[in-house]
Amino acid sequence: MVQNTVHLKVHWGDTDMAGIIYYPTYMKWFDIGMLTLVNEMGVSVLDLFHNEKIGLPLLDAGVTCRKPLLYNDDVRVVSRVTEVKNKTFRLEHEVYRGDELVANGHEVRGWVQFDDKGNLKAVPIPDDVRELFLQEKVLST
Amino acid sequence: MVQNTVHLKVHWGDTDMAGIIYYPTYMKWFDIGMLTLVNEMGVSVLDLFHNEKIGLPLLDAGVTCRKPLLYNDDVRVVSRVTEVKNKTFRLEHEVYRGDELVANGHEVRGWVQFDDKGNLKAVPIPDDVRELFLQEKVLST
Amino acid sequence: MVQNTVHLKVHWGDTDMAGIIYYPTYMKWFDIGMLTLVNEMGVSVLDLFHNEKIGLPLLDAGVTCRKPLLYNDDVRVVSRVTEVKNKTFRLEHEVYRGDELVANGHEVRGWVQFDDKGNLKAVPIPDDVRELFLQEKVLST
Amino acid sequence: MVQNTVHLKVHWGDTDMAGIIYYPTYMKWFDIGMLTLVNEMGVSVLDLFHNEKIGLPLLDAGVTCRKPLLYNDDVRVVSRVTEVKNKTFRLEHEVYRGDELVANGHEVRGWVQFDDKGNLKAVPIPDDVRELFLQEKVLST
Repeated sequence: MVQNTVHLKVHWGDTDMAGIIYYPTYMKWFDIGMLTLVNEMGVSVLDLFHNEKIGLPLLDAGVTCRKPLLYNDDVRVVSRVTEVKNKTFRLEHEVYRGDELVANGHEVRGWVQFDDKGNLKAVPIPDDVRELFLQEKVLST
Repeated sequence: MVQNTVHLKVHWGDTDMAGIIYYPTYMKWFDIGMLTLVNEMGVSVLDLFHNEKIGLPLLDAGVTCRKPLLYNDDVRVVSRVTEVKNKTFRLEHEVYRGDELVANGHEVRGWVQFDDKGNLKAVPIPDDVRELFLQEKVLST
Repeated sequence: MVQNTVHLKVHWGDTDMAGIIYYPTYMKWFDIGMLTLVNEMGVSVLDLFHNEKIGLPLLDAGVTCRKPLLYNDDVRVVSRVTEVKNKTFRLEHEVYRGDELVANGHEVRGWVQFDDKGNLKAVPIPDDVRELFLQEKVLST
Repeated sequence: MVQNTVHLKVHWGDTDMAGIIYYPTYMKWFDIGMLTLVNEMGVSVLDLFHNEKIGLPLLDAGVTCRKPLLYNDDVRVVSRVTEVKNKTFRLEHEVYRGDELVANGHEVRGWVQFDDKGNLKAVPIPDDVRELFLQEKVLST
């Protein structure tokens, strides 16, 4: 299915007093990876939210850390859609430093509509978006 | 004018690889201090936003750091309104570890209304809120 | 095994433009829950790091989000050790708003020693720490 | 004096429930701008810290916000050294969205040495670094 890569860096504030990356940073990167993938597919996350009140909340996530990342490390996060259900989709994320896989994980996201009171209701993923998720295409590397 | 205190802690993720606090954390604390003060005055920040589309965006802020804070340090942030203009108000914040002043700073906040397109427009601070800002009262310590 | 609870709040900066909690915040809370549990057991995380160069890096984590949290929500994070191996330990974390379970997850942590160059090496969890992990005790609620 | 530019983006997690940027993000950007400038000058912040126990803690900072930034906005942060004293230096930071100045601010940083116990002591900025700060050069745009 569709795949996209973002290039990121470990900033000073992403480290902790042990000198290695503070692990919630991986979740920030997964979130960036997912949203960039959707935007790069040609579906504007911002328009979805403003025009259709559609959001993509996190239902389930996980990360496995293999190597500690350090300040100023350059990484790339490769995000790939791996499953598309009626109202949810799943992505696998891999974080590389050079050719080394330093961490990997997943996210399951809902396709939900917010009503005027801010309540969320899962709704079916539109067919055109589903096709974009299912395409065998590498959007960027 | 009105004053409030919040009690916070330096968490592991607030430190950086030099072992001391990552300084944007002070701004997070000033933001918490400001919002807690308004809530404690009896003005719900959440109701303001949801019911009246009123927000309190940051216009100007500053911080002076006197001592480095370390992991697990307990601090209290004392926030005091020091000026109330027609559409803006100013707070001074002091951060203490025990009796030691470790940092201090200020914020100038706007009183703004969001329209349906998310645009902001400064509007006058309501009289009842102004009076609450101007009262000589310590809400909590 | 040993269990501890921390009381936290959703701050303004923890929300995103959809008005709900930004999900890496759960990982920040799991980290706080784990470290507070260890400190409350009587093992100072700070002394471990400074005196023995011992750290507790994240090896694996996951979260399942059941309900969206909103600004100013009060939560409690209940953290319980559920497995202690030779060089790693596992915790389950539950996040409650009142009596409602809003999210839960896990962490697997290593017991590692940093050398002078910042390299990490897994080492056995000391017997006295192991016993503290294995005790059937609720440290705080 | 020396000047450098970094290119950044407003990520989803940088916004708050009012739909605009959470303001401590500016301080994260100023920190990134300062450290990137020093690295780009040819002085490795990482080597400084590991080899000489030199850090650059924040002494004073301020920000003025002129326009609210929104999700997915591309920005550039222009950082310029404006004063070099014996043991401190000052930078001005400007944040642009396209040609529009959306925020600006400053930082005063110390040149400090950490001892074995983590205590900080201000030390003179070395002459070679001082010359690099004082050069009239745009490192990147």
